[in-house]
Amino acid sequence: MKTIPLLEPLAAELEQVERKLLEPTHPDYPQLTAVLESLLLSGGKRLRPALVLLAGSFYPTDREKLVSLAASVEMLHTATLVHDDLIDGALVRRGRTTLNARWNAGATVLAGDYLFARAAALAAATGNVRVMTIFAETLMTICGGELRQIFDRRELPRLDDEQAWQSALDRYDQRIYAKTASLFAAATEAAAVLSQAPEAHVVALREYGRLLGTGFQIMDDVLDFQGDEQVLGKPVGSDLREGIVTLPVLYFLREHPDDERIASVVRDGGQDAVVQEVVTAVRESGAVARAMDRAREFIAQSQAALAVLPEGQARDLMHALADYTIARDR
Amino acid sequence: MKTIPLLEPLAAELEQVERKLLEPTHPDYPQLTAVLESLLLSGGKRLRPALVLLAGSFYPTDREKLVSLAASVEMLHTATLVHDDLIDGALVRRGRTTLNARWNAGATVLAGDYLFARAAALAAATGNVRVMTIFAETLMTICGGELRQIFDRRELPRLDDEQAWQSALDRYDQRIYAKTASLFAAATEAAAVLSQAPEAHVVALREYGRLLGTGFQIMDDVLDFQGDEQVLGKPVGSDLREGIVTLPVLYFLREHPDDERIASVVRDGGQDAVVQEVVTAVRESGAVARAMDRAREFIAQSQAALAVLPEGQARDLMHALADYTIARDR
Repeated sequence: MKTIPLLEPLAAELEQVERKLLEPTHPDYPQLTAVLESLLLSGGKRLRPALVLLAGSFYPTDREKLVSLAASVEMLHTATLVHDDLIDGALVRRGRTTLNARWNAGATVLAGDYLFARAAALAAATGNVRVMTIFAETLMTICGGELRQIFDRRELPRLDDEQAWQSALDRYDQRIYAKTASLFAAATEAAAVLSQAPEAHVVALREYGRLLGTGFQIMDDVLDFQGDEQVLGKPVGSDLREGIVTLPVLYFLREHPDDERIASVVRDGGQDAVVQEVVTAVRESGAVARAMDRAREFIAQSQAALAVLPEGQARDLMHALADYTIARDR
Repeated sequence: MKTIPLLEPLAAELEQVERKLLEPTHPDYPQLTAVLESLLLSGGKRLRPALVLLAGSFYPTDREKLVSLAASVEMLHTATLVHDDLIDGALVRRGRTTLNARWNAGATVLAGDYLFARAAALAAATGNVRVMTIFAETLMTICGGELRQIFDRRELPRLDDEQAWQSALDRYDQRIYAKTASLFAAATEAAAVLSQAPEAHVVALREYGRLLGTGFQIMDDVLDFQGDEQVLGKPVGSDLREGIVTLPVLYFLREHPDDERIASVVRDGGQDAVVQEVVTAVRESGAVARAMDRAREFIAQSQAALAVLPEGQARDLMHALADYTIARDR
């Protein structure tokens, strides 16, 4: 597991999270165990577990339970990725082939379900009903958002006037909340609840998570246009190919409402050469820069939300983590 | 909602479960709400919620929470059916077209996930950590079993000697535990826990659920051979077509180890005429009767498990419900 350098102070506990993630629960399914292990090990930077560990550090907390919560959040994240990849038909993620590129759809659905179940069991291991409720509601938000994304896919938003623009932006914000920010918010809120933080601090930590997650996802959407395919581990413009309109595209469409190429890619996918052309056009317009500015605003707000919390290493690291999310290249 | 006559005393509370199941949680997705409603309304006999209501009737219990638990169990059951149908590629269940026959696979996966999430939220509404833990562990058991079924599919068990036979029977028992009995057991155990029953009664109620569920599933497997397609709402021999070897087939294979037709249907699916031939052969052999005898044994054991519980209407209904599971025709 490779996290980012600034999270080095959490290394020992992140290692415990790692062990928790890989704990065999059904040792009699060697085939399944191997697949789940590979899924969990191909995992990313463990930002979500780090958020749990940090947000649970302002008050004395049972660290064992916090580690369970951190593992639960990462497990839930991994489960949603497995189903996501199946739905998108994605064959590569993080530079590795996805599960559905190797298994049949049925086994992939079930492996995702199994990870959901393990995530629920890890959340239950916190012994905290409010934490369990946050877990269940977040899963509902994530799935609801994914469903909406399926219904909205391949629809070109109409940006005729200010009201239409605002409504398209609202829909985008709701989508990235469901997709990413809700789980970040759940991670920090649940950790605060577990540490019995005063309610004002629970609210502040949830707010930090939500704002950080929002900025993080906008940055993801920016990287889908200006990132390096080698570093990203996936092709650029992949959302566009899937007919998903992200913030850089919204800004671009606002300036070029009659761009036929973008309309055709959103509606029909379009040929590789056309997608490349559109990616270049969006990248060279001011749209990507404008999206980055908006990500920076959310990140600044997330840092402002930390102000009410006790000073110290946890708060400093959370501040630095926010800066990192917009400085990263993948 | 149509339950069975003997559950009439529970009608008012089952109606509350029904309302809980259909509570809109995201009123802004009319498309999703309509689909989920149709899924939940196409539901069966509500045996699982009835088990929860009955098992929670031996001690004074918060009925509101018990209704949440009953709805949670039925929601979890519905979620697994949605994913099951996707995996099997089944187009008809309970005489209606399945979700995946109308939607694409992605939307079906997510609708199932969404139901899992709502089930988890309903379980959390009981406010009981042990209930949540039972919920999560049961989901793990169900998914683990489904995965094993995928790996075992289209494998003809070898029944050369007594040891091989015993091992094939054990594998069958494990599979039906995961598929059906585990959720029956969870329903009765969790209800007992919620009603703060003494531990010996929690154990007895769990045991009743497990044994009842085992008998119930064997009977389901029997009906797959001798049922009436019109009443069942699905074609007979459907497991066999899917390459799944159930108890009647095991008994048949024990007597006819060299039957080539059955081997070919299990391994390759086979033509409709051959499947019909095999179904008739199994039906006319003693295999179906032997499977029914085994179901009756489990049902008798489930009734015996009730002996330690306080006498009264709940116990009488549970006893009658056990008789019903083997007398039913669908």
